[in-house]
Amino acid sequence: MSLEGRFDADEGLVRVGSDARQRYHDSRGYGYPLEGNEIALAPVEAAHLLYRGDLDSIVHAETGERLGFREFISREPGDDFGVRFLVYADLRSRGFYLSPAAEPWVPDPPGGEADFAVFPRGKGPRDGEIAYPLRVIGERTDVPAAELAEGVLAVVDEESEITYFEIDRRDPTGSSSGDAALPEDCEAGLLADRVVVWEPPLDLYERTFYGQPLEGREYDEPTLQCSLLEATYLAERGAIDLEAATVRERGREVEGERFDRRLTVYTELREHGVVPKTGYKFGADFRTYADVESVENLGHSELLVRVHPAAYVFEPRDLALDVRLAHGVRKTMVFALVGDESDGSEEIEWWSLERLTP
Amino acid sequence: MSLEGRFDADEGLVRVGSDARQRYHDSRGYGYPLEGNEIALAPVEAAHLLYRGDLDSIVHAETGERLGFREFISREPGDDFGVRFLVYADLRSRGFYLSPAAEPWVPDPPGGEADFAVFPRGKGPRDGEIAYPLRVIGERTDVPAAELAEGVLAVVDEESEITYFEIDRRDPTGSSSGDAALPEDCEAGLLADRVVVWEPPLDLYERTFYGQPLEGREYDEPTLQCSLLEATYLAERGAIDLEAATVRERGREVEGERFDRRLTVYTELREHGVVPKTGYKFGADFRTYADVESVENLGHSELLVRVHPAAYVFEPRDLALDVRLAHGVRKTMVFALVGDESDGSEEIEWWSLERLTP
Repeated sequence: MSLEGRFDADEGLVRVGSDARQRYHDSRGYGYPLEGNEIALAPVEAAHLLYRGDLDSIVHAETGERLGFREFISREPGDDFGVRFLVYADLRSRGFYLSPAAEPWVPDPPGGEADFAVFPRGKGPRDGEIAYPLRVIGERTDVPAAELAEGVLAVVDEESEITYFEIDRRDPTGSSSGDAALPEDCEAGLLADRVVVWEPPLDLYERTFYGQPLEGREYDEPTLQCSLLEATYLAERGAIDLEAATVRERGREVEGERFDRRLTVYTELREHGVVPKTGYKFGADFRTYADVESVENLGHSELLVRVHPAAYVFEPRDLALDVRLAHGVRKTMVFALVGDESDGSEEIEWWSLERLTP
Repeated sequence: MSLEGRFDADEGLVRVGSDARQRYHDSRGYGYPLEGNEIALAPVEAAHLLYRGDLDSIVHAETGERLGFREFISREPGDDFGVRFLVYADLRSRGFYLSPAAEPWVPDPPGGEADFAVFPRGKGPRDGEIAYPLRVIGERTDVPAAELAEGVLAVVDEESEITYFEIDRRDPTGSSSGDAALPEDCEAGLLADRVVVWEPPLDLYERTFYGQPLEGREYDEPTLQCSLLEATYLAERGAIDLEAATVRERGREVEGERFDRRLTVYTELREHGVVPKTGYKFGADFRTYADVESVENLGHSELLVRVHPAAYVFEPRDLALDVRLAHGVRKTMVFALVGDESDGSEEIEWWSLERLTP
């Protein structure tokens, strides 16, 4: 026997009586219990029960109108009901229970922009455990960097397919050689938008992985080409004989304010024992190596890093592109958000995004 | 015995006498012949011979200064000498000959923005055959779409690594069902930024691959969710019972002018027998299927399409990202450049970009 719900549009709730509590809440994690055996459902939960044929219909409390699935979802206002319904249904079909991220559905709901609390497989809203908070957006909804939070972001594309991203903090650290291994005052020249270091000790490349040797002739001490970032860092530490200010100025000329942000990130990575090299071939700012002992025995780079100002606003399509590419080359996509210098902070927030199959 | 060159800074040429013609031009494709055995070299060619140790030094014709490789490249003006030298040296080290894309180096030089003419392996400047024109840029040089031309684009990144892109015309065509296979007047509803088609004939999805079935219950005639692009196209052809203008208007509301450009491209693809589906998961506008007989036996999608206005300016980093991603998923990256409506043309230029290892 199917049941009928009563929709109170003001409250945005659907109430179901009879044995609803046992049938829908206790055994299948829908809604929250009211008096007796009655339960209250969020519209997305009610729509799912309608869609599955578990609810026969929903009666509009005010108008007495009887709504089937089609009528119910067509009248649901709000641009994001559709995308939330799709994700709710998708996770349900994968065997997960989830509730709106709000009391009284869950006793201690996740904050921020979360739409749902997703429970561990086999658990429900009353088991006191949340696997992750879930935010749902359409592919056209921009995401300000400040809204990133640990949890899962589900993006519904224009054809209603869903991509899940797992978002985490990720502070890169490694064991690569620090500044103690640097040479002093190597002869270097500034050429347009790069720097040539003329025959530095081989270790500068081979052990600490600065620059790129000019190829095409045999060498013991190779001539290295360094990026302006590498060269600024080296000049600041007296490893090459150029003025750091001169190199930095050139960097700003060719790259604008992006150069300073990237230098902040470059410097923090180096200081944490991680070697950043250009990520150009992956369309990123850097690829990174956490544990460089020598270039000869270089492992796989672990991260792709994209640098943004803290006030950046992500487009979901760009997230899809970055995360997909990183996944394809077995690296993790990391975003480094650099605080605004003007407020005195240059702190970096590090976030990783990875594809998730729930 | 090594030779010496004479540099005429006004002409931007290095002259080498003695047996230079036989040694450098005839047998190894450097420069062009002058009177007797003398040849003229472009600075990039002269720098390469210096670098290899084939030229001892170059004497500045005016000052009498003797320049080695280091002095010669440090004095070469122009921001792009460095990147051109790197690419010249790279192709040489791969066994190719190449000349500046100008007379008298080559009798019939490629036009446009080409920097070099690259000859087929084993051929040189006097063999009357050019493998491809080659343009060289640094990763910070933007590329206006209007400058795209058949040939190869070499991008030198900030750490002096080179990525080669092969650029070609690419008009997509296929054999998928045309409009004749469409149903008439299916019942449909506009929901925020998508359209639901209520139980259309199964063929609409299964044969012509419109929409995405709502999952989670059994069906014979599935309820389809269509993107606003699909729905506009279907409404224009009377296949669904919505006004095309209404759906198009909604598309413009949620996507701005990008919607019209994408609709132009969507329409041309469908009219040429190619099925476009969303490319969101790949960060592109569309992925395309040239020969859809049924969704059940759907092959691999062949292209990723990104839509831009004809006046678009590419950043090399974005090209790297797109082309790398497409390559990783075994598809070809295609850019559809849509003419400005205001000049009456909505013509599309199609360009493919693929990674090339010379």
